[in-house]
Amino acid sequence: MKIINNPNRTDWPTLVTRPEFKKEEITIVVSEILSEVKNNGDEALLKYAEKFDQVKLSQLTVSKEEIENATSVVSEELKSAIEIAKSNIEKFHSAQNTSEAPVETTKGVSCWRKSVGIEKVGLYIPGGSAPLFSTILMLAIPAKIAGCKEIILCTPPNKEGQINPAILYTAKLVGITNIFKVGGAQAVGAMAWGTETIPQVYKIFGPGNQFVTKAKEMVQQEGVAIDMPAGPSELLVIADDSCNPSFVAADLLSQAEHGADSQVILLSDSEKVLAEVNAELDFQLAQLPRIEIAKAAIENSKSILLSNINDCLEFSNQYAPEHLILASVKTDEMINKIVNAGSVFIGNYSCESAGDYASGTNHTLPTNGFARNYSGVSVDSFVKKITFQKLNETGIQNIGSAIEIMADAEGLFAHKNAVTLRLKEIGDV
Amino acid sequence: MKIINNPNRTDWPTLVTRPEFKKEEITIVVSEILSEVKNNGDEALLKYAEKFDQVKLSQLTVSKEEIENATSVVSEELKSAIEIAKSNIEKFHSAQNTSEAPVETTKGVSCWRKSVGIEKVGLYIPGGSAPLFSTILMLAIPAKIAGCKEIILCTPPNKEGQINPAILYTAKLVGITNIFKVGGAQAVGAMAWGTETIPQVYKIFGPGNQFVTKAKEMVQQEGVAIDMPAGPSELLVIADDSCNPSFVAADLLSQAEHGADSQVILLSDSEKVLAEVNAELDFQLAQLPRIEIAKAAIENSKSILLSNINDCLEFSNQYAPEHLILASVKTDEMINKIVNAGSVFIGNYSCESAGDYASGTNHTLPTNGFARNYSGVSVDSFVKKITFQKLNETGIQNIGSAIEIMADAEGLFAHKNAVTLRLKEIGDV
Repeated sequence: MKIINNPNRTDWPTLVTRPEFKKEEITIVVSEILSEVKNNGDEALLKYAEKFDQVKLSQLTVSKEEIENATSVVSEELKSAIEIAKSNIEKFHSAQNTSEAPVETTKGVSCWRKSVGIEKVGLYIPGGSAPLFSTILMLAIPAKIAGCKEIILCTPPNKEGQINPAILYTAKLVGITNIFKVGGAQAVGAMAWGTETIPQVYKIFGPGNQFVTKAKEMVQQEGVAIDMPAGPSELLVIADDSCNPSFVAADLLSQAEHGADSQVILLSDSEKVLAEVNAELDFQLAQLPRIEIAKAAIENSKSILLSNINDCLEFSNQYAPEHLILASVKTDEMINKIVNAGSVFIGNYSCESAGDYASGTNHTLPTNGFARNYSGVSVDSFVKKITFQKLNETGIQNIGSAIEIMADAEGLFAHKNAVTLRLKEIGDV
Repeated sequence: MKIINNPNRTDWPTLVTRPEFKKEEITIVVSEILSEVKNNGDEALLKYAEKFDQVKLSQLTVSKEEIENATSVVSEELKSAIEIAKSNIEKFHSAQNTSEAPVETTKGVSCWRKSVGIEKVGLYIPGGSAPLFSTILMLAIPAKIAGCKEIILCTPPNKEGQINPAILYTAKLVGITNIFKVGGAQAVGAMAWGTETIPQVYKIFGPGNQFVTKAKEMVQQEGVAIDMPAGPSELLVIADDSCNPSFVAADLLSQAEHGADSQVILLSDSEKVLAEVNAELDFQLAQLPRIEIAKAAIENSKSILLSNINDCLEFSNQYAPEHLILASVKTDEMINKIVNAGSVFIGNYSCESAGDYASGTNHTLPTNGFARNYSGVSVDSFVKKITFQKLNETGIQNIGSAIEIMADAEGLFAHKNAVTLRLKEIGDV
């Protein structure tokens, strides 16, 4: 890992910048896929399954039998682990499902908000080397708590036309049985517009490669909501002399193994800590099965020495990391200074993988600096908050005149008249 | 207003469809404006002020003197009205600023969320015929409650290079003094990237014409968050025989006067109500100053007879109106059936203009069917919710094994190792 000693503050903006990816070529490919799916529906999906997933599918829908069979294949040990994660994620997300009491803003004027689940939502789960069944928990559990009526799941099949059993088992466990064998940008298009088989949804969630991400951005322009913009996964660790260097190295590597484009940053006020973590890093890296991926990510990463922990926090706020670990036993003061971060892991025993799987927090988080302006996925992401208001005669008498004056000043006379007529009827004018 | 009697359910999807606008030409114009602003900063803004606002500006920043002078120009009557609105909007939005208690999902595992204001936000207020100072209240008050540190405001100048005093007065009242004389797509570009004079922001709020809306969509693709996608304003009224037809007509017109493209829909189970409202509509329309605009909007609008109120609610949910008025004295049952709507006005005395100005609810709401998947602006819109977690030794002992098993099943061994090392250190393995 490259070590940077006490960089000038004027260099910070460069240091917090993420690498840019060329988007033009992807845009052209994704546009074509989306318009094919829009125009030809299932036919296009089957064609792309053959092209990209190398499989001739007889049907896109995962059958009841396939779902049932998954249960018998998944080990009891994994099932118990998933149950623990599910229970914690449910506990944490249920607490987000609050209702707000009406506020009487003026006598006779009562206003409130009500959370209503978005009726139709689509979850995308990538296939490929890692079957991300944990992401199903992270998306489906808040969707259920929010009260979404129709939840569908798209995920690419393997070359045998099958879906990983852990994915099917987890989906069933959280109550999702509308599962489709569709991956990539074509899955996003299918959920955005619907096909003969796949129902249209109002909001699309889930991680994916650059094609999936681009497709989500493009359908967003046509009125389909998406969870958030996305980029490569990131971790920033602030470690002081009370950290455990071997834990820090393990955490940095757990981020690095996600992909060669993963972003890993280590900040410290101690030269010794940086040296120790880097030594541990080399040691642990050698033992990883995904060594090539992790090595590439680590080569692009930085460990930076700053003069004090306050500067580390300031740098971190400028970077706005997806994951932020405070590797220290003195975290109380640090917490209050965090302004931009997706999810924060406090102390030496809060590893990122806890939040990735089982502590209860959501792992769908803003990357690429989006922690400055976006939140991670929560129950909020699956609801609309509708405002309600009820004015009685007293209410309109109390605020009617203010409305008339303001409407008049904005030149909106029909707005004013809607009040005047009511005040007249009550006999107030 | 066109009356449609008992349309077939199969025709509903057509009836709820909004007119489409051609976007291609706008896209080209807006792209050019944005890239000019990105490359040439203030120079481009001054050029566009001359071109679009017909004014040669000596500076873009509104001076302290201009802001102070506004106070002396605005009438005491209007000031008091704005004060009443401000107080109600503050009361309603303050209640949204809740903090969430930590949840102990498992013994030793504590998780919570903290709302942190987005540091830099930009508010856009249109100029033109109506000086929308009310929108400043609707955007700046929640921004302040959210704790946004830097709030800037852009609004176009008139031909004399001035900003409407009511806008300046209201801005100052809610604590905004960074005000710039920039309108249109160029204002959006300036806030997205910053110029010599105008600071860059992370999220842009506010209504605008098709150019502003398009510019917001386009900068969103480059990582700047926006409040929500936008379209023409809308009102749907469900009226039964307990409504007051003259109130209903006034409400429909208050929507219609916004613009010729405003969408107005009246639903009822009573032929008599439809006839009476339409008669009132003709009568009131004739007296409006903005008669031409309102007339055009009403000509595009529909009054629809349905067999019962339940069908009206179902239709409304399919339409997903920005504003929904329940013009009835029997609203209790109706409320629970509302699934898609921006803001709901209950009973005969809750006119839309109450919510537009002074009841306390926000008037920045999802249009164009976006009430299916978006909420209106609230304090939520101005914060990120950061998750925190703290595991102690007991916590990692309790969930560590579940994490290891799940990480292993997803093929992510460094994730597993981050836990294993900690369990070993505790002496648990």
